[in-house]
Amino acid sequence: MLKIAVLGYGYWGPNVVRNFSSIKGVKVMSICDLNDTALKRAKNDYPYLDVSTDCKRIIKSSNIDIVAIVTPVSTHYQLAKEALINGKHIFVEKPFTLKSSEAEELIELAGRKHLKIMVDHTFLFTGAVRKIKELIDSNVLGNLYYYDSTRINLGLFQHDVNVIWDLAPHDLSIMDYIVKERPLAISAIGAGHFACGLENIAYVVVHFNNNMIAHFNINWISPVKIRTTLIGGQKKMLIWNDLETDEKIKIYDKGIRVRNRQGIYKLLVEYRCGNMWSPPIDHSEALKIEAGYFVDCILKDKTPINDGCAGLRIVKMLEAADRSMKRKGDLIKL
Amino acid sequence: MLKIAVLGYGYWGPNVVRNFSSIKGVKVMSICDLNDTALKRAKNDYPYLDVSTDCKRIIKSSNIDIVAIVTPVSTHYQLAKEALINGKHIFVEKPFTLKSSEAEELIELAGRKHLKIMVDHTFLFTGAVRKIKELIDSNVLGNLYYYDSTRINLGLFQHDVNVIWDLAPHDLSIMDYIVKERPLAISAIGAGHFACGLENIAYVVVHFNNNMIAHFNINWISPVKIRTTLIGGQKKMLIWNDLETDEKIKIYDKGIRVRNRQGIYKLLVEYRCGNMWSPPIDHSEALKIEAGYFVDCILKDKTPINDGCAGLRIVKMLEAADRSMKRKGDLIKL
Amino acid sequence: MLKIAVLGYGYWGPNVVRNFSSIKGVKVMSICDLNDTALKRAKNDYPYLDVSTDCKRIIKSSNIDIVAIVTPVSTHYQLAKEALINGKHIFVEKPFTLKSSEAEELIELAGRKHLKIMVDHTFLFTGAVRKIKELIDSNVLGNLYYYDSTRINLGLFQHDVNVIWDLAPHDLSIMDYIVKERPLAISAIGAGHFACGLENIAYVVVHFNNNMIAHFNINWISPVKIRTTLIGGQKKMLIWNDLETDEKIKIYDKGIRVRNRQGIYKLLVEYRCGNMWSPPIDHSEALKIEAGYFVDCILKDKTPINDGCAGLRIVKMLEAADRSMKRKGDLIKL
Amino acid sequence: MLKIAVLGYGYWGPNVVRNFSSIKGVKVMSICDLNDTALKRAKNDYPYLDVSTDCKRIIKSSNIDIVAIVTPVSTHYQLAKEALINGKHIFVEKPFTLKSSEAEELIELAGRKHLKIMVDHTFLFTGAVRKIKELIDSNVLGNLYYYDSTRINLGLFQHDVNVIWDLAPHDLSIMDYIVKERPLAISAIGAGHFACGLENIAYVVVHFNNNMIAHFNINWISPVKIRTTLIGGQKKMLIWNDLETDEKIKIYDKGIRVRNRQGIYKLLVEYRCGNMWSPPIDHSEALKIEAGYFVDCILKDKTPINDGCAGLRIVKMLEAADRSMKRKGDLIKL
Repeated sequence: MLKIAVLGYGYWGPNVVRNFSSIKGVKVMSICDLNDTALKRAKNDYPYLDVSTDCKRIIKSSNIDIVAIVTPVSTHYQLAKEALINGKHIFVEKPFTLKSSEAEELIELAGRKHLKIMVDHTFLFTGAVRKIKELIDSNVLGNLYYYDSTRINLGLFQHDVNVIWDLAPHDLSIMDYIVKERPLAISAIGAGHFACGLENIAYVVVHFNNNMIAHFNINWISPVKIRTTLIGGQKKMLIWNDLETDEKIKIYDKGIRVRNRQGIYKLLVEYRCGNMWSPPIDHSEALKIEAGYFVDCILKDKTPINDGCAGLRIVKMLEAADRSMKRKGDLIKL
Repeated sequence: MLKIAVLGYGYWGPNVVRNFSSIKGVKVMSICDLNDTALKRAKNDYPYLDVSTDCKRIIKSSNIDIVAIVTPVSTHYQLAKEALINGKHIFVEKPFTLKSSEAEELIELAGRKHLKIMVDHTFLFTGAVRKIKELIDSNVLGNLYYYDSTRINLGLFQHDVNVIWDLAPHDLSIMDYIVKERPLAISAIGAGHFACGLENIAYVVVHFNNNMIAHFNINWISPVKIRTTLIGGQKKMLIWNDLETDEKIKIYDKGIRVRNRQGIYKLLVEYRCGNMWSPPIDHSEALKIEAGYFVDCILKDKTPINDGCAGLRIVKMLEAADRSMKRKGDLIKL
Repeated sequence: MLKIAVLGYGYWGPNVVRNFSSIKGVKVMSICDLNDTALKRAKNDYPYLDVSTDCKRIIKSSNIDIVAIVTPVSTHYQLAKEALINGKHIFVEKPFTLKSSEAEELIELAGRKHLKIMVDHTFLFTGAVRKIKELIDSNVLGNLYYYDSTRINLGLFQHDVNVIWDLAPHDLSIMDYIVKERPLAISAIGAGHFACGLENIAYVVVHFNNNMIAHFNINWISPVKIRTTLIGGQKKMLIWNDLETDEKIKIYDKGIRVRNRQGIYKLLVEYRCGNMWSPPIDHSEALKIEAGYFVDCILKDKTPINDGCAGLRIVKMLEAADRSMKRKGDLIKL
Repeated sequence: MLKIAVLGYGYWGPNVVRNFSSIKGVKVMSICDLNDTALKRAKNDYPYLDVSTDCKRIIKSSNIDIVAIVTPVSTHYQLAKEALINGKHIFVEKPFTLKSSEAEELIELAGRKHLKIMVDHTFLFTGAVRKIKELIDSNVLGNLYYYDSTRINLGLFQHDVNVIWDLAPHDLSIMDYIVKERPLAISAIGAGHFACGLENIAYVVVHFNNNMIAHFNINWISPVKIRTTLIGGQKKMLIWNDLETDEKIKIYDKGIRVRNRQGIYKLLVEYRCGNMWSPPIDHSEALKIEAGYFVDCILKDKTPINDGCAGLRIVKMLEAADRSMKRKGDLIKL
């Protein structure tokens, strides 16, 4: 039986505790938070668990196998490092770290100590993303032309990071998972409108080979909530609307074929307009699947799809997007 | 009674003929097209009109006051110039010209000869855009934060221009009309996936003072049709969904206020989440209103809102977007 | 070349003229209307046609083969009878007649004189209804459980008929066409709220064998427009949303199977929740297809699917619904 | 501090326990269920509570003030009666009882013993219904013309009651709450398609004075989920779409006015087509508000809006609907 301690019981921590509690083969032992309200809530929810403010003690405890780090991103590196040093597997909230150098150090450290890192890219474990991955891997869409994501709403305003660091990890990690090609470069443009100076709206473009392009529209100050991703391929096109309950994914047998017309130098454009279909999506809670998968990876010594390297790739893209945004959209090579 | 000749009877020409025919104070005299099919259709639709292939004769005819140029953009400049030289007012399909220098020459020529130029930015005359203009002019939205437009679908593939020159004139002319501030710079990124090499997907950003930002997502190869514009202001936010029949425009009493909390350096973020309302929109045909307005401008010697200068501003933005796209998103000053 | 005269140039008449004009093998000769505005409009639209108020002359003209009757329903019987007596095929606006006895008389008369009757159940010729018919005929849905239609909006208020006679002919004729079983009985409940006393909202139920049930929600005073039909079958279920542009029809591989569990008297309910798919729909104008089909039926002596007998079946259902509504929902056998 | 025991820990019971647990002034003491799985779940969720199968003991316990009855409807009467006899206030799942005579007996008993009955018409405490109630009470809609509700989806199939008893209590209790007029009569038509013989689809009409009409479309075998209510009034019309997250209620300034034209006997129909607006809705959990309200009613000796009499009115309507459905839609006076 693996034993886990959860650091951080703010917005996401309770979900981590609840889901690891429901998994066989792992037992939640401790919850740690520095905030009074969070502590009181944790004690009320789990009167029989060890709830405290003493992270250090917990990280060092010989009774703990896994440390879940669900704290602000600025604290990830230090907590993760201590946990690894003390021989714990780590489950780290996204984004992995604030700097790619920190992520690299943690990966190296975990490798040396034969410990697992899982970065909590929860979306990879949703029924929708697993279905899209399956469709792309089985080449239903054909070669990809574009990936176009919109994630906007009147969001909880983050005080410490801009909208890219807050929202883009979701979509970058999804793209990183389902697109096989590696991105070449990133550019980003953003704007902030309040005293804090942080960007609350941003447009990020990821450049690939073969004119494949990915675009991310992220916005904290939209009056409406939109969570839509379009993926255009040579053979088929797909739309994923995460706000739909029943028909989250629709696949369109639509497309364009451009040929040179015989003998002359004119283009012949042909449209294809066939069926649309929507497959059923598994509605299991993503975090529960992810928690079970992490336990499985530890027990069977498998490398998670969302390991430290995946976390590092996302941090590198976030860094590049930030740098590009500072320079008004300059192309930053990856 | 003003007399008008319409050059070009392809996709849009028939609408121009039909709408000018329905306006008092103007009479359609001639239709001209070089294409056999178009000619046959024109003759069938209007057996009593002068239908021919002889543009030159028509442009020179002393019996014509206005020449409507509804031909491919590459021919606009030459036809417009000849019409102006022959003392005709001109109604020119958008985009005005292929080059800003051409537009400037036409504006100068028209000014010298006291002739009117109207560039067919039809959207300005839709009920939706007129309502948005009215809301912004009466400061309902407050200072603008962003303008975010999406115009995508599986479109008719243009053989001679890229997706920016095809679709962006709509949205750039709308933005130009309703946003009082003048844009400072443009950047654009695009991709093409077919032999022709033309971009079929592009993202254009227009930069303003005060962190106001405008973004245009245009795409010829989307499986679904989307025509949505979000406008975020300090006081209210607006969404315009042109595919809605009855509730095209929704105004949200939603917003964010960020203050420094007294005495301490922490931000206090306040959300406002009030009513949404949707005003009734006039459903009159935009081109008919525009045609009547052009006649009125000529008769009363008024400068159209969509005059040559408006047309020139759009062409300059298109040129800049094109240049930026060639340079992978470099910021191009306007 | 068949020659057609169109009686009535109000709301629908212009569409009838325009569509028959576009069909090969038939020529529109005359338009007749008693209303000044309609007459003026007809003359303006078709300066070269015989436009007059003299129905009698036209009906008797030896130069006419078909009479299209696009006048108020109260005049259908008299005009249709005269046309048949004078040896003309007739195309009659729906509903066919005000009384089933009138319809029966016309059918008998046409039969005797070897003339064709087509009742303008236009919806049968839409791409959507043709696709649904095809799906049901090929048993994709399996045995039907229910047919549930909603057709509501803030409609043009009819002064002479109630909402059932105005809106239900659409849906009853569609149901009559795609459901093979013959209805056994009808019940209806309605309400009127204005001085005229006519019902502006009604609910009609059509009863079939085997617990198959059809329901029609029709309403002239709804703030929103809804045009949706659900068809539930043993094997699959279908939704037709006529306000959708691209995905009008969706077929769901969803269903319920209820079995007795072996040995015990408990029910075992199984849900099936598979793919949804949406086939492409032909967007041709229904009335044009219908007009061509009528010409074809006359030339090849075929019986139209929407012949007088189809028209009679609808009138009988309307009569029964009316009678039931007067009696607060009493079941009226058909 | 009031003390509550919850009988039944199936689908809804856990919500009742959780919400009463979160209310000040009341304490959950015992959970009772006869089912093994439910018992195990209750013990796991609340290890510190009295969890057992012994209803009798709990109902008689002097340590309990309130008994919440969240068991199948067939057991409500017996359990409620015993609880009242033992001096407990009761909170009863809807529908209140299987027969109106049972409900009347319970009301009489509670009255005699000065005990409170609350029937769990949870929907009355949603933000949406409270907002609609407020709008109607302040006469925003004017006199009501119709109430038209659709509640359909591929539902959990009930083995013991038909679709009317399962789904209609929601909408009948909402209508009962927001419509001031008392219904005069009910008619209903339904159909069942499986061996169990229970109706899985039904249409219920409630008749009022002044041609006000209410209609309920309920269906367990629909491929899509719809939860929509239209309310048409003389002054304004309203649509409530419970599946919308942000814009659940829309109020339309649309309507019809019919007048006699001066001097002649012709009707003049005028349409009004103004703004639509959508007020913000409180998203608090309805059951929590209801639980707090029940505690408040007990402590301050107030009569709940959803007291036994409200429960009785709904049961009477369900009985009438059932009777009408057996007789193919006969009008049943209330």
